[in-house]
Amino acid sequence: MHRTKVKIVEEALDANNTIARANREDFDRHGVRVVNFMSAPGAGKTTLLERVAGDLPGVRVGVLEGDVQGSMDADRLASLHVPVTQLNTDPGFGGECHLDANMVRSAMHELPLDEIDLLVIENVGNLVCPAEFRVGEDVRVMVASVTEGEDKPLKYPLMFRTCDLVLVNKIDLLPHLDFDLDRFLANVDSVNPGVRAVLTSAKTGEGVEEVAAWLAG
Amino acid sequence: MHRTKVKIVEEALDANNTIARANREDFDRHGVRVVNFMSAPGAGKTTLLERVAGDLPGVRVGVLEGDVQGSMDADRLASLHVPVTQLNTDPGFGGECHLDANMVRSAMHELPLDEIDLLVIENVGNLVCPAEFRVGEDVRVMVASVTEGEDKPLKYPLMFRTCDLVLVNKIDLLPHLDFDLDRFLANVDSVNPGVRAVLTSAKTGEGVEEVAAWLAG
Repeated sequence: MHRTKVKIVEEALDANNTIARANREDFDRHGVRVVNFMSAPGAGKTTLLERVAGDLPGVRVGVLEGDVQGSMDADRLASLHVPVTQLNTDPGFGGECHLDANMVRSAMHELPLDEIDLLVIENVGNLVCPAEFRVGEDVRVMVASVTEGEDKPLKYPLMFRTCDLVLVNKIDLLPHLDFDLDRFLANVDSVNPGVRAVLTSAKTGEGVEEVAAWLAG
Repeated sequence: MHRTKVKIVEEALDANNTIARANREDFDRHGVRVVNFMSAPGAGKTTLLERVAGDLPGVRVGVLEGDVQGSMDADRLASLHVPVTQLNTDPGFGGECHLDANMVRSAMHELPLDEIDLLVIENVGNLVCPAEFRVGEDVRVMVASVTEGEDKPLKYPLMFRTCDLVLVNKIDLLPHLDFDLDRFLANVDSVNPGVRAVLTSAKTGEGVEEVAAWLAG
């Protein structure tokens, strides 16, 4: 029984990878670079995105917004005048805690792929399952807020291990926290050696230019 | 196909509820009150628990610690000299993002039910799936950190709707955040009318006594 469950999970992930490759081919054909943007709830993905999307001259950005319910983040981003497509995981599933390749595929025909150069897929706030499901992205960026504690890379290693860039966010709060930044960075490096980490604050703007340059490049 | 997936999810939840009832009967037979303790990653569950567990004279506390990997939180709590049982969701699943009734059942024989009055089940840090799976608890407590933003009750309504107590944590950081506490509490009340909310800080000790009294009562 235990082995059966493992097998079912493996088959589901295999199917997901097949669809993710199809998504990737579609994105490539349209010359769209895709970022899978992930974090715990409230780490500051949307607020950072609001700052960064305005700092990308010459790059036409689109956003695919993943949420269990509602369109609050999409509404916020729409004010930036970038095309935003909402994807809710709620109907039919009782609320999936992550995006998968098939959900992204179902939104494919609504994405203005000919009008954008960069698609940011804002995943559901969760440090576990989003890391397990490729959706057709080129790169993965994760946002870790300093308010979450230094231990998170060790508690959620798959998320930190499979990302290409770690944004250490809300860095402006550091003076008010018992957060050992060096230890956190050492923990990140222990699960994903050499991965680039950028200190960011949507409030002060620290790191925003560096992230924008990375996304544009 | 879509309908089939819904049916499979419903059947899984039905099976879970059956096992949750069996767990509950076992807990009741031993006179153990059970709290399902939930939050997003890094909201401060373990640190609050460290404070509260020391503030419960006359109540023998045990902890069942749920994590994807590792035993960092269990190690921290063990220093309180309360019995701590570790439950990892990693083996065989690729890392489940929540505890379910069957996982708790698998740990049942390791729990010192005759030696405790209150079992705190610290769930995996996640605002989605833990809310969908009853594990045999009497009550649900969720911890929401003020660093996560006012919108979370509206974005993760099932979690906020199905809990019996909301701890609004890290309240000491309020002066450094753009966080509208009244709006947050109104959002909580809109998804779970009348639910009790306690402002807490593991750092200053605010609210710790009130939480301890609630748990003991």
